[in-house]
Amino acid sequence: MAATLDTIVSLAKRRGFIFPSSEIYGGLGAVYDYGPLGVELKRNVRERWWRAMVHEHEDVVGLDSAILMHPTVWKASGHVDAFNDPMIDDKQSNKRYRADQLIEGHIAKLEKKKKTQEAERVHAALVEALNADDPSSALHALILAEEIRAPESGAFDWTEVRQFNLMFETKVGAVGGDTIYLRPETAQGIFVHFGNVQQTSRQQVPFGIAQIGKAFRNEVVARQFIFRMREFEQMEMQYFVAPGSQMEHYAEWAEKRMNWHMSNGIRPSRLRWHDHEKLAHYADAAKDVQYEYPFGWQEIEGIHSRTDFDLSRHQEFSGKKLEYFDPQTKERYIPYVVETSVGLDRTILMLLCDAFHEEEVPTAKEGKTESRSVLRFHPSIAPYQVAVFPLVKKDGMDDKAKAIAADLRGGLNVFYDEKGAVGRRYRRQDEIGTPFAVTVDGDTMEDGTVTIRSRDTMEQDRIPAENIAAYVKDATAAWTAPTD
Amino acid sequence: MAATLDTIVSLAKRRGFIFPSSEIYGGLGAVYDYGPLGVELKRNVRERWWRAMVHEHEDVVGLDSAILMHPTVWKASGHVDAFNDPMIDDKQSNKRYRADQLIEGHIAKLEKKKKTQEAERVHAALVEALNADDPSSALHALILAEEIRAPESGAFDWTEVRQFNLMFETKVGAVGGDTIYLRPETAQGIFVHFGNVQQTSRQQVPFGIAQIGKAFRNEVVARQFIFRMREFEQMEMQYFVAPGSQMEHYAEWAEKRMNWHMSNGIRPSRLRWHDHEKLAHYADAAKDVQYEYPFGWQEIEGIHSRTDFDLSRHQEFSGKKLEYFDPQTKERYIPYVVETSVGLDRTILMLLCDAFHEEEVPTAKEGKTESRSVLRFHPSIAPYQVAVFPLVKKDGMDDKAKAIAADLRGGLNVFYDEKGAVGRRYRRQDEIGTPFAVTVDGDTMEDGTVTIRSRDTMEQDRIPAENIAAYVKDATAAWTAPTD
Repeated sequence: MAATLDTIVSLAKRRGFIFPSSEIYGGLGAVYDYGPLGVELKRNVRERWWRAMVHEHEDVVGLDSAILMHPTVWKASGHVDAFNDPMIDDKQSNKRYRADQLIEGHIAKLEKKKKTQEAERVHAALVEALNADDPSSALHALILAEEIRAPESGAFDWTEVRQFNLMFETKVGAVGGDTIYLRPETAQGIFVHFGNVQQTSRQQVPFGIAQIGKAFRNEVVARQFIFRMREFEQMEMQYFVAPGSQMEHYAEWAEKRMNWHMSNGIRPSRLRWHDHEKLAHYADAAKDVQYEYPFGWQEIEGIHSRTDFDLSRHQEFSGKKLEYFDPQTKERYIPYVVETSVGLDRTILMLLCDAFHEEEVPTAKEGKTESRSVLRFHPSIAPYQVAVFPLVKKDGMDDKAKAIAADLRGGLNVFYDEKGAVGRRYRRQDEIGTPFAVTVDGDTMEDGTVTIRSRDTMEQDRIPAENIAAYVKDATAAWTAPTD
Repeated sequence: MAATLDTIVSLAKRRGFIFPSSEIYGGLGAVYDYGPLGVELKRNVRERWWRAMVHEHEDVVGLDSAILMHPTVWKASGHVDAFNDPMIDDKQSNKRYRADQLIEGHIAKLEKKKKTQEAERVHAALVEALNADDPSSALHALILAEEIRAPESGAFDWTEVRQFNLMFETKVGAVGGDTIYLRPETAQGIFVHFGNVQQTSRQQVPFGIAQIGKAFRNEVVARQFIFRMREFEQMEMQYFVAPGSQMEHYAEWAEKRMNWHMSNGIRPSRLRWHDHEKLAHYADAAKDVQYEYPFGWQEIEGIHSRTDFDLSRHQEFSGKKLEYFDPQTKERYIPYVVETSVGLDRTILMLLCDAFHEEEVPTAKEGKTESRSVLRFHPSIAPYQVAVFPLVKKDGMDDKAKAIAADLRGGLNVFYDEKGAVGRRYRRQDEIGTPFAVTVDGDTMEDGTVTIRSRDTMEQDRIPAENIAAYVKDATAAWTAPTD
C-alpha cells in the first residue's frame, strides 16, 4: 500500500526522523529539523552520493564553499534581477498570493466544472502573460479580465502584481554594512572557483566539481513537508566540458544519475524522466528525474546543459579570465557546463515514501493477523544497520548482547534495545527500517550462536555471533528493492 | 620546524585546501571556502567525531536542526539582549574599533615601553569597566581618560561606545516579514528539541544529543585565517544529567574530548587545558582545550557545565514543560547540561599547523640535500589515503595502476597520478599529506608486486598488489604521531 503524505509526516515525527523547526515555539514556516533517525539517513545518503560522484570518479573533485558570498556573484548569476515570484495582495484580507498560482487555481476550478474550452483559453493566456515583456502587468490584467476572486475572502479588490525576490538578505559588517544574500543555490560557489580548483587539482577538461551544502529561498508559499523548504540541502556537480561535446556528457550523466537513484533501492516504476518544455535562457538541454510522490510526479533532480553562460557572466562581472587552455589542441576557451543537481531533502522524502509499507502478518494466535508497518530502506541507507537484543535481561544475556553490539560498532550503526517483549522490539525496528535484528538467548550463552532476523522477510537464521558482520555484509550486497 | 600562519595560508591556497570566498570578486571578509583537499579533510574529521560521539555511545543520538529558527529562541537564550561587542568609531577616519581591544592595544604598547606599572593599572581599569553596570560608558570613559588615539589616523575624536549585536538578521516571508536570525551557535537547536528527542529515541537521563552544523557571527574584527570566521562549523554535544551529578560527567567528557584530539595525531605538547577565570552567569564550571597555534595558545574546544539555565529559559519563554520524569526515583526535574563544543574549522587549522613539517633530505647526488615539505596527517584524516602511480605511462603500467586504484576505491580515497618524474610525484603527495604511495613498475607486470612508500619515513616496501588494502589498514592502525 502506498503511503499518504500525512502518514509519512506523522511517522517521521513520531519516530524521530523529522520535527518542525523550533516546535515548542509553534514552529517556523517551511523549515524542518532532522531528528536522531533523520540525521543518520541524511548522513548515509550524502556519503553514497559523495562516493559515487567524487571518490569513484578520477575526474571529479569536491568543494565546500560558504553560504555567504560576495554580492556581485548574484548580479552575475542573474538572481538579483530575475529570481522573483510575481505576488499580488487581496486588499480586503491583506493576504498575499502568487499571481500565476492564483490563475492556475482558477483554471483548475474551470476544469472541475468541465468548462474545458474556457480552461484551455485561460491556460493559453497565462502562458502568454508569463512570456510577456512585462509579466507583472500582464498577469494583473489577466486576473482582472477573468474576474478572479481571492480564494479566502472572496473579494475582488487586488493590488498591482509585484515581483518579490526569493533571496534572503542580510547585512555584513557593522551597522550600515553591505547587503549580502544567503545563497539560493550551491552552483555559483563552484563556478567562481573554477580556476582555483582546476589549477590546484591539476585536472584537465572534461572534469567536474561536486558540492553538498545548504541553500535558502524565501518561498512565500511553501508546502508539502520537506519537499519545498526555505532552508534546504543540495548535492550538485558541475562538469566542465569542451564546447560541442556537451550533449554526449549530458546523456552520460543523466544515465548515471538515474542509475544512482535506483541503486538506492527506489522502485523504477516510480521514477521517470521529464523533459523541460521551455528551456531557461542559458540552457541548451534540460530534463528532470521525477518521482511519484503521494502528491504526484515531482522533480527530484535536474540535469542541465548550461552552456558557457555562468562562466562567461562571472568573467564579465569579475574581470577575471575564466578560460581553459587545452594543452593538446592549444585552444583557449570558456568551458561548457553540464550540471546534475539533486535535492537532499527531496531524496529523503522519496526514500521515506518509497520504503513505507504496511501489511497484514500472522500473529501467534492461529488464524489471526495483525498490521505491520515497515520501512524497507536499502540496508546501507537505513539509519541503523543492525539491532541487538538480549532475549531477557538476565543470566548474562544483556552483557553478552552489549558486547556483541560494541563489536559491531566498528563499521556499522547499531541499536541496542533490552526493553519489552522481543516481538515488540522487532516491530519497532521494522518501523524505523533496521534491516537486521540479532537476538541473544539462552543458547547463545551455551554455543555462541545468535538468531538474526530479516526485516523484509521476517525469517530468522541461526549463526555464530562472530559471523554477524559478514552475514550483514553479504545480505546487504544481495539485497534487492521490493517491487510490490 | 613549526609553521608560521603565512606558510599555512599559502600552502592551503596553493594546494587547494582553502580559498578566500568569492576570490575572483576580491573575497568576502572573514569567509573562506574549502577546496578539493580541504573538503576531504573536513569530511574525515566530521566522520571521526560522529563515530566517536554518537555511534560509539549508546547514550548519545544525533540531530540536524536548521540554521533558521523561531526568533524567540534567541530571546530565551539571551543572544538578542546580550550577544554584543562594544564598538567605538574614530570620527575622523570613520573607522570602527572594538573598544576593549583598543584598550588592550594600548596596554600592549605600554608593556613594550616597559611601563609595567602603568600597564597593570590600565589592565585593572579595563577589567573593572567590562564588569561595570554600564560597560559602554565605562569603556568610553576609560578611552578618554587614557587619551587613547585611533591606531590608523592618530586622531583623538571618538564617538560613544555602542553595543553591536553579532547575530546576522534577515526577514522571512514577504516584504515586511518577521525578523529572524542566522543561528550564532548550534546548541539551541538541541535544547528546543530536548523533549522530542528524549521521547522518540526513548533515552533516559543521562543521555546526549550531538550535532554538526554551521553557525554565523557578524564579527566586526575577524582575523587569523579560518580561526575566527563569520560563517563557521561547530560540532557540539549536549549531555543531559540529573542535577547534582554534573561535575562527574563534566570530568568524564573533558577527558574523552582531550583524548579525541590526541587520537587524531595532535602532539600532546601543543595541547593544554585552560580553566575559565570568570564563568558565564549560567555555568558552574567551564574549561577549554587550547592548542598552540602559530599565533599563540587559543581555544579549540569548550567543555561547559551549563546547569539547567537553557532548558529553564526555554520552558519559561515557550510555556512548554521541558522536564524529565525519572522512572526509578519517580522524580520530575529539569536536567542539567554538560556541553562539549568544538570548532570544526579551528580543528582543521590545528591539523594543518600540527602536521606541517619541513626537513632536509638527501638527494640522488652524493652529499647534496634538498628541502622536503610534508603534512604528517593521521592516515585516516589525510585527504587521500593512497596515491597510485605508474612508473612510466607505457607497457601497460598505466592501465595496471588505474585498475589497482579502482580496486582500492571501495573503501579508500585514492589519488591517481601519471604526470612527471616519480620523485616529483612523491613530493607532491608529501605536501598534501598522502600517507602511502604505490608505484607500478616493470616488475609489477611480471610478478604482480608493487612498491609502497611511506610518507613519513620515505622507506619503501615491496608487496603483492592484492595486499595493498591490508597493508594500509595495518600501517594506519600502527601509526603514531610524530613527536619532533
